[in-house]
Amino acid sequence: MPHQTMHALQAHGLGGLDRLRAIRARTEALAAPLSPEDQTVQSMPDASPTKWHLAHTTWFFETFVLRPHAAGYAVFDPAYEYLFNSYYEAVGPRHPRPQRGLITRPGVEEVMAYRRHVTDAMATLLSTAGTASTLGDIVELGLQHEQQHQELILMDIKHALSLNPLRPAYRLPSGKAPKACPLAWREFEAALVEIGHEGGGFVFDNEGPRHRVWLDAFALAMRPVTCGEYLEFIEDGGYRRPEFWLSAGWDCVNQRGWQAPLYWEQCDGRWKIFTLSGLESVDPARPVCHVSAYEANAFAKWKGKRLPREAEWELAASAIDDSGEVWEWTASPYVAYPGYREPPGAIGEYNGKFMANQTVLRGGCAATPRGHVRSTYRNFFPPDARWMFGGIRLAEDLR
Amino acid sequence: MPHQTMHALQAHGLGGLDRLRAIRARTEALAAPLSPEDQTVQSMPDASPTKWHLAHTTWFFETFVLRPHAAGYAVFDPAYEYLFNSYYEAVGPRHPRPQRGLITRPGVEEVMAYRRHVTDAMATLLSTAGTASTLGDIVELGLQHEQQHQELILMDIKHALSLNPLRPAYRLPSGKAPKACPLAWREFEAALVEIGHEGGGFVFDNEGPRHRVWLDAFALAMRPVTCGEYLEFIEDGGYRRPEFWLSAGWDCVNQRGWQAPLYWEQCDGRWKIFTLSGLESVDPARPVCHVSAYEANAFAKWKGKRLPREAEWELAASAIDDSGEVWEWTASPYVAYPGYREPPGAIGEYNGKFMANQTVLRGGCAATPRGHVRSTYRNFFPPDARWMFGGIRLAEDLR
Amino acid sequence: MPHQTMHALQAHGLGGLDRLRAIRARTEALAAPLSPEDQTVQSMPDASPTKWHLAHTTWFFETFVLRPHAAGYAVFDPAYEYLFNSYYEAVGPRHPRPQRGLITRPGVEEVMAYRRHVTDAMATLLSTAGTASTLGDIVELGLQHEQQHQELILMDIKHALSLNPLRPAYRLPSGKAPKACPLAWREFEAALVEIGHEGGGFVFDNEGPRHRVWLDAFALAMRPVTCGEYLEFIEDGGYRRPEFWLSAGWDCVNQRGWQAPLYWEQCDGRWKIFTLSGLESVDPARPVCHVSAYEANAFAKWKGKRLPREAEWELAASAIDDSGEVWEWTASPYVAYPGYREPPGAIGEYNGKFMANQTVLRGGCAATPRGHVRSTYRNFFPPDARWMFGGIRLAEDLR
Amino acid sequence: MPHQTMHALQAHGLGGLDRLRAIRARTEALAAPLSPEDQTVQSMPDASPTKWHLAHTTWFFETFVLRPHAAGYAVFDPAYEYLFNSYYEAVGPRHPRPQRGLITRPGVEEVMAYRRHVTDAMATLLSTAGTASTLGDIVELGLQHEQQHQELILMDIKHALSLNPLRPAYRLPSGKAPKACPLAWREFEAALVEIGHEGGGFVFDNEGPRHRVWLDAFALAMRPVTCGEYLEFIEDGGYRRPEFWLSAGWDCVNQRGWQAPLYWEQCDGRWKIFTLSGLESVDPARPVCHVSAYEANAFAKWKGKRLPREAEWELAASAIDDSGEVWEWTASPYVAYPGYREPPGAIGEYNGKFMANQTVLRGGCAATPRGHVRSTYRNFFPPDARWMFGGIRLAEDLR
Repeated sequence: MPHQTMHALQAHGLGGLDRLRAIRARTEALAAPLSPEDQTVQSMPDASPTKWHLAHTTWFFETFVLRPHAAGYAVFDPAYEYLFNSYYEAVGPRHPRPQRGLITRPGVEEVMAYRRHVTDAMATLLSTAGTASTLGDIVELGLQHEQQHQELILMDIKHALSLNPLRPAYRLPSGKAPKACPLAWREFEAALVEIGHEGGGFVFDNEGPRHRVWLDAFALAMRPVTCGEYLEFIEDGGYRRPEFWLSAGWDCVNQRGWQAPLYWEQCDGRWKIFTLSGLESVDPARPVCHVSAYEANAFAKWKGKRLPREAEWELAASAIDDSGEVWEWTASPYVAYPGYREPPGAIGEYNGKFMANQTVLRGGCAATPRGHVRSTYRNFFPPDARWMFGGIRLAEDLR
Repeated sequence: MPHQTMHALQAHGLGGLDRLRAIRARTEALAAPLSPEDQTVQSMPDASPTKWHLAHTTWFFETFVLRPHAAGYAVFDPAYEYLFNSYYEAVGPRHPRPQRGLITRPGVEEVMAYRRHVTDAMATLLSTAGTASTLGDIVELGLQHEQQHQELILMDIKHALSLNPLRPAYRLPSGKAPKACPLAWREFEAALVEIGHEGGGFVFDNEGPRHRVWLDAFALAMRPVTCGEYLEFIEDGGYRRPEFWLSAGWDCVNQRGWQAPLYWEQCDGRWKIFTLSGLESVDPARPVCHVSAYEANAFAKWKGKRLPREAEWELAASAIDDSGEVWEWTASPYVAYPGYREPPGAIGEYNGKFMANQTVLRGGCAATPRGHVRSTYRNFFPPDARWMFGGIRLAEDLR
Repeated sequence: MPHQTMHALQAHGLGGLDRLRAIRARTEALAAPLSPEDQTVQSMPDASPTKWHLAHTTWFFETFVLRPHAAGYAVFDPAYEYLFNSYYEAVGPRHPRPQRGLITRPGVEEVMAYRRHVTDAMATLLSTAGTASTLGDIVELGLQHEQQHQELILMDIKHALSLNPLRPAYRLPSGKAPKACPLAWREFEAALVEIGHEGGGFVFDNEGPRHRVWLDAFALAMRPVTCGEYLEFIEDGGYRRPEFWLSAGWDCVNQRGWQAPLYWEQCDGRWKIFTLSGLESVDPARPVCHVSAYEANAFAKWKGKRLPREAEWELAASAIDDSGEVWEWTASPYVAYPGYREPPGAIGEYNGKFMANQTVLRGGCAATPRGHVRSTYRNFFPPDARWMFGGIRLAEDLR
Repeated sequence: MPHQTMHALQAHGLGGLDRLRAIRARTEALAAPLSPEDQTVQSMPDASPTKWHLAHTTWFFETFVLRPHAAGYAVFDPAYEYLFNSYYEAVGPRHPRPQRGLITRPGVEEVMAYRRHVTDAMATLLSTAGTASTLGDIVELGLQHEQQHQELILMDIKHALSLNPLRPAYRLPSGKAPKACPLAWREFEAALVEIGHEGGGFVFDNEGPRHRVWLDAFALAMRPVTCGEYLEFIEDGGYRRPEFWLSAGWDCVNQRGWQAPLYWEQCDGRWKIFTLSGLESVDPARPVCHVSAYEANAFAKWKGKRLPREAEWELAASAIDDSGEVWEWTASPYVAYPGYREPPGAIGEYNGKFMANQTVLRGGCAATPRGHVRSTYRNFFPPDARWMFGGIRLAEDLR
């Protein structure tokens, strides 16, 4: 649950309604290059159709804002409560996640009409209701939620398109070419530090409470691991040498046939990478991306280093360079901070019930909306997941 | 491979080109009520997307007619050879069947352009080339093949729509109400008969050669089993009493939780059936449909009867009433007739390689193109399959 | 159900009781070389532990003979009714087949005590009751049933031992070396023939009724296919060329990685075969064994021949040489003969309910008790099964 | 790897050789009540046959002590290196874990001979070699390892016997009846504490290094949760109310049909528990056992409490009552302590590579050898595992 000050919506530069319209429009812009066919498919149980993201983010506002708070609101279609509930047990039963790709109706047009209906109702509500703290909080949560799904749309469509042997592109190549730089380190003294959110501004419930953590002396790399460095690991037999791997990671390597990060493929002896702009050559200066926590960990061990703990990462955040292009796997399982309690009601399911079998990533990536890049933000995925934009930053102990 | 007379195309009332255009247009008309989203999904590995059917039937003409026979034919897209090959090993590798629903591109529009491109090229070829026997044969096979897929389009989209909790309808209800009639029987003497195709007209390779079969005296029911009769079986505990079931059928009942035919569901204690026109009440006078061979067999045993052998069915075909609304399960596994040989080349894979683990159905159903309803036609599916339009006709021994 | 004359037991040379003791002792002799550990394991769901076979054949006599017919019989252990029921739904629930290998208690000693208890009670019954027809029939069925399990004991323990990397031997090598002979053919005219059992002597219910079948002219090979001939198929790329395979067979080749018959393995570039006497070199003169129906069919197609239909096999049985070392796959799915009806009650489940998805094998193998080798005997297994002793005899059409 | 002082073996009261003989004899005493059949089976992939435990603990001494350190040692059987390697990649390939139950040979007798051979060779080595530090360390590790497997033998055979519908008992009931006591709490102030091993005595590598941890104020329950308290949770709908469960736990409840702890079953409306002494009534005063981390967590949430973190548990260990009957789930995922490094070589695989997807349990249970009950000991299992003796101790935050 968000711990935020009152008037949360006003605090973000844009007025509340303008901001809502801008964020909703941004989501739609992300879907715009995709055909109705593209927007319908679900390439694996973990991913969702674009169309579903468009509808679910709208369902969130309808369910948690309009139904309880907008007097006289006309529900767009009662069946959507079931169809577009993601995982909220307290809201009621829902369509099975692995079957999201079988829902051809409502189609894209009807989903866009649903979006307009809800956005308009939100506009009416926001212009008539004063943005009382409680309402503001839940509206803000809906906007942050929608921004999280903006990143998911890109993750999921990338995965879906990658399975098409035609290797279609979502967008044109950017043309930006990063320049390589040697690896430098920044050192930190042992200290009793505080991490977690405190004070104003929106955060998710799992970012607090602020609490003390003892950290021994450590150093952090000043940029993420590059594709060039990762290629050395591959070429040194990294995927064939069990000594670098956690046991569960080694099982993945063997059972799933991992030989490189997701989306890497060998064409005539050279590595290529499938991107949102289609197949591209490996750029050795780019941060390596689409690795699992197991690969991140094995790479670190091969280097004689380790991954950072999330408290180390958070402490160092302001001093770290070159973050923000890829999420950075930490060594920390995703657990509650001391003193954490889920908020009451359905919203309590937002983060808390996932605190098992997941690993924390910190930072943000090129697909992350800018407001989501902050030092306390805790992203989390199972350690074998590779379809999000996850990379590697190295750490080491200092004695 | 078809055993047919020369000039096959002329033999069907319409001139070859008109007939080709009519059949191709019929396929497109079947897809017309469906959105791009509807046409994209694959609801199970056995089913295929509408869009795939539209493209695959086109691929068939391109691969087996235009590439080898049309000088200067410009292939529409070389990648389609891989994408839209169904199961022809001799043609080369192909897209995995269970992943047909992940191919969002080409989209419906592009597939329709592919269809136009190939239909036009076929028109040019047919108007310039004399319809020599060999070419005529393969063109005719392509048309028959496309008609088979017309039925598959309806089977597959029915299954896909049935999984949508909104239970969308593909078309308006027909309004036809059949009248119930009591069950009568027709008797046949023991005899050495001949079955299988002989003489003119198109048939599939598996319908011949014509050969002798000894049949003991038997009787056939003069109409298929009705929903009303099948309801009695259900209400008599048919799905809970192992004594009626083949062992493999009883496993299905228990492992898949069968309690009624596919698409039957209980709403407030009354049975409803999902149809192409949405949910409807059970009409007791209608032939029961969407049963597996196991259910057909269990019903027959409960009645103290049996299913007909395919030679019995074929012998009796001209005398049997009320056929053609549902395919009729036989007691016969699908095997080669004595003396059968697959034709050479890729076309030899059309029927022959499936002669294992399948059961023959005879007749035809409301979704079957009329030219496919003939006494020698051998339809076949695994005995546990239920998504095609399969029903039951009873037989019994006479001594 | 057995169709047999009265006094079935007397008809077999040995008096009923001596015969029962001899058959029961033979089963125990087969288990004797095996340790309690060997007798406990189940290597796959299709196979059963030796100990289970010892107990189940005993359960059969207890359930179908002693309980209903032996006044005052004291049941050995009431729990065994559940533990050792194989598949008789009419008898009641039973221990799940795939978990037979988890039943460590009763142990081998207790199972042997169970055997003695039941054999003794059978002896008492047989010596006091006159062997009335009905009792004689079911006792005879019990003996035939036990003989079938003698072959299963060898099939199953061979499979279990083959999975042990130590490759332990069940018995000493026999030393017999067959001599190779060239392949000859015997021809048969087209005719309306009769097959199926008629007259005296024990047979299983599925061997009748006797009925007429039309057969076109054909020829049968005078000996089974040898390992040497099969090696040519392997070396000609038989397992890499889809044109020889049924579609379901080709799936097996690819999904299970078949490259040779079961129990064949390559050591330093040479083929070896795991046998009940341990690893042995391939003897090119021996009949090839442990092939599936799919492999039998693919081999035949590669040779330009086909497999025999079961009616052809039965007609030719008396003229065929060299049968009896391996079961011979036919081209015939296992279905009921015209006029077949299961006997009433639990015994009706013996054969009839398995008439789906199985293929008939004819003849018998080195592990088959001699009384089971007769021209009407119908053995059956799923077409992908390889752990029984299945080989190949070729047939061809004559025009 | 153990961090221990020199002369580790002497430090334990018994001289090294006597201690080795006593521990080895204890393992054999645990297997003594079991038949060869019992000792052969593997009831699930996570469990191992008793016979395998007997052999693997012997393999450990042969592989890590005798082969490298005992000049002239004669390997008992070279094949055992492959058969009885558990998971040491650095030692070489090994028999697949899920197939341990298929190895009928070597049998129990041969495994016991293997044990005698290795114990004797160890005796010779220990009496001739001075127990130099390095040798002492690895011998001590082998003994600790064997003691860990003593507990595994009981866990695994309990699971195997529970699957036998006869519900056989491993041993006689103990007759001890605990007395119920009300729940009391002990409070701890916030503090920067040190946890992890330091100083003399054997510990496993994962118990160190000693390091600082900040703990906020908390309280710990003074005894584990009882069966009576857990029954209240069940009766309050605990297994039907998602609000208490982590998402992954709720999936287990639904997919595996959990309704109570493992080994609980309802007979005529009353709960019974399968124990090593057979089926027993629930004793409300006993600690609840055989719950997963998910159930422990759900119970705590239902109570308005939480599970302790492992640092809290370790800090409080000396003050906690009634520990040692069941392992106590913590809220802490199993990760490396700051500064942890695996020892070099195969022994480095002992603990370190499992630091993913596991949850720490603290304390010890009735089946744990006494020397393994110490405040720094870190037991770990996946959070869904239930077949070890895992129970619940509650914690709560103090502000």
